[in-house]
Amino acid sequence: MNIPTIQWEQNSVKIIDQTKLPHKLEFIYCGNVEELWEAIRNMSIRGAPALGVAGALGVVLSIYNSDAKSIEKLEKEIKENIDYLKSSRPTAVNLSWALEKMWEKFKEIKNKDVAEIRKILFEEARKIVEEDKKTCREIGKYGAKLINEGDRIITHCNAGALATVDYGTALGVFYYAKGKGKNFHVYVDETRPRLQGARLTTWELTQNEISYTLICDNMTGTLMKQEKVDKVLVGADRIALNGDIANKIGTYTLAVLSNFHNIPFYIVAPSSTFDLNISSGREIPIEERNKDEVRCVGEYEIVPSDTEVYNPAFDVTPNNLIHGIVTEKGIIKPPFHDNIFRILGGK
Amino acid sequence: MNIPTIQWEQNSVKIIDQTKLPHKLEFIYCGNVEELWEAIRNMSIRGAPALGVAGALGVVLSIYNSDAKSIEKLEKEIKENIDYLKSSRPTAVNLSWALEKMWEKFKEIKNKDVAEIRKILFEEARKIVEEDKKTCREIGKYGAKLINEGDRIITHCNAGALATVDYGTALGVFYYAKGKGKNFHVYVDETRPRLQGARLTTWELTQNEISYTLICDNMTGTLMKQEKVDKVLVGADRIALNGDIANKIGTYTLAVLSNFHNIPFYIVAPSSTFDLNISSGREIPIEERNKDEVRCVGEYEIVPSDTEVYNPAFDVTPNNLIHGIVTEKGIIKPPFHDNIFRILGGK
Repeated sequence: MNIPTIQWEQNSVKIIDQTKLPHKLEFIYCGNVEELWEAIRNMSIRGAPALGVAGALGVVLSIYNSDAKSIEKLEKEIKENIDYLKSSRPTAVNLSWALEKMWEKFKEIKNKDVAEIRKILFEEARKIVEEDKKTCREIGKYGAKLINEGDRIITHCNAGALATVDYGTALGVFYYAKGKGKNFHVYVDETRPRLQGARLTTWELTQNEISYTLICDNMTGTLMKQEKVDKVLVGADRIALNGDIANKIGTYTLAVLSNFHNIPFYIVAPSSTFDLNISSGREIPIEERNKDEVRCVGEYEIVPSDTEVYNPAFDVTPNNLIHGIVTEKGIIKPPFHDNIFRILGGK
Repeated sequence: MNIPTIQWEQNSVKIIDQTKLPHKLEFIYCGNVEELWEAIRNMSIRGAPALGVAGALGVVLSIYNSDAKSIEKLEKEIKENIDYLKSSRPTAVNLSWALEKMWEKFKEIKNKDVAEIRKILFEEARKIVEEDKKTCREIGKYGAKLINEGDRIITHCNAGALATVDYGTALGVFYYAKGKGKNFHVYVDETRPRLQGARLTTWELTQNEISYTLICDNMTGTLMKQEKVDKVLVGADRIALNGDIANKIGTYTLAVLSNFHNIPFYIVAPSSTFDLNISSGREIPIEERNKDEVRCVGEYEIVPSDTEVYNPAFDVTPNNLIHGIVTEKGIIKPPFHDNIFRILGGK
């Protein structure tokens, strides 16, 4: 991908408007925290690592737009904006992780003058952006070892360049493997209700000339039964200390199917997706989204607006269904609790 | 349901156009075999038992439109039309079953004059229509025994009044149970790609005042994990002698999930859905449908038309994942091979 999913440009957070893909490649310039909140909320930008970067750049926006004359006022504003941005999407931990990282940095330097603080926080956000790029490539390198010549791999949702700054986690593994000359085929779950697989992943794979087939989510079982699937690689929005993971709704179903068919099931995510404050997936908040996401596809209304709907945006896959978690520091294998600490250390 | 899904009216086969639901209740009058073939092919009418009735009425159409002067010519026409109608949908066996039944009847009476043959075949088709209505109610009676007060039940696709003449198989069980005063809740899989669950099943359940929630297909796993599901009831398009069943794509995934979560998984289908000529599900032909069904929802194009897609319309669930098959002659339990013969006898 040559176009970053998210970047700082013209004193704004410039993002690809992912609600318009694959039909149109359009950009949104978020000039203030409210516009960024809205862009996250309506999923113009989404994907756990990209949301981390959005959080970091959100703090930069906050301070760029501030006319606070005192550090106290600036501190209050930043704190409020951090809490506000956190409320945009509750499940992915990377957003909170980056916001907290910016907050810690601010507290460390708050005795400096405002111009200096602005510069340092901007630099901190820039580092998070660069780290994301580097991290994805490291993940790709480790993950590519899992890809064998001729593999047929299912992926769900979009864990690609569009979920990060420019490379991807699960899809980054594919890009790295392809760069090494490996041939493989990807089955892309369309990923209802928001169709990130159909709209975003196929768009990316087409651009990167990776062979794929789009399927409906309910076709994965029959593909596995037909022995057409060698492994599953998906991203994650939050990983607990015991290796339980939250990811896009449908991931758990895919994990159960993989287990039933003895197909290795891998998570691909940066260390910023690990939440060291929670011991299991039970503690991960699951966002429920607007019922219209299920009732409608694009502008097409499938069912009347009074149709009762359940729309959890994520589900939790327990560690016992997971074969490994690919991170930028290596592939973490079971037993997860011990190995997460061993490999990630203090993150 | 007061409006039959399919009936003979004005020398035509009058059907509800299911591609227009839930937005519009419209009818199509098929005045010849070609129009009926097209209505089946594009799923204006669908559902295994309803397709059986369509087959029977298709033979009536054939003879009504015939100007054959000799029995030989009439026989040739009917045979050609039967083969032609069979080609409209390959997986559901009820269509072939009804066409064969009409053919047997024709052969039995072909020494009579044309007016007499027409009358007898019309009567034969009428019997198939009446038998479908009666069968569904018998199925409902047996199946309702499986429904406990407070049950939460997943169903997939549409095995309702719209899949039969006027009552349904899996949904007929719900109607019967409700008629007996039982309270329960249904989770309706939207059933991509054609969304029969979202468009047809919710429409029927609303009309019949049955409590339901619409979900995306990939949410069933998480619902089961949350212990919100007590059983699964789905229809079938073909059942082999060993109890393997073909049903709408996604059924197999649901069966694997049920197995993993120890949730009883039931098939609900009339005896005409059993194919006594095949010993296992491996012999069931699986229809692959137009890729645009996955690429588009209604008029909304999700992905460009060159996106590579796999679109099997059905999958096969092996007998070991099935707790019972509810028929009009009773509930068939494992071991299926012996019990299918014992309960259905010569069908």
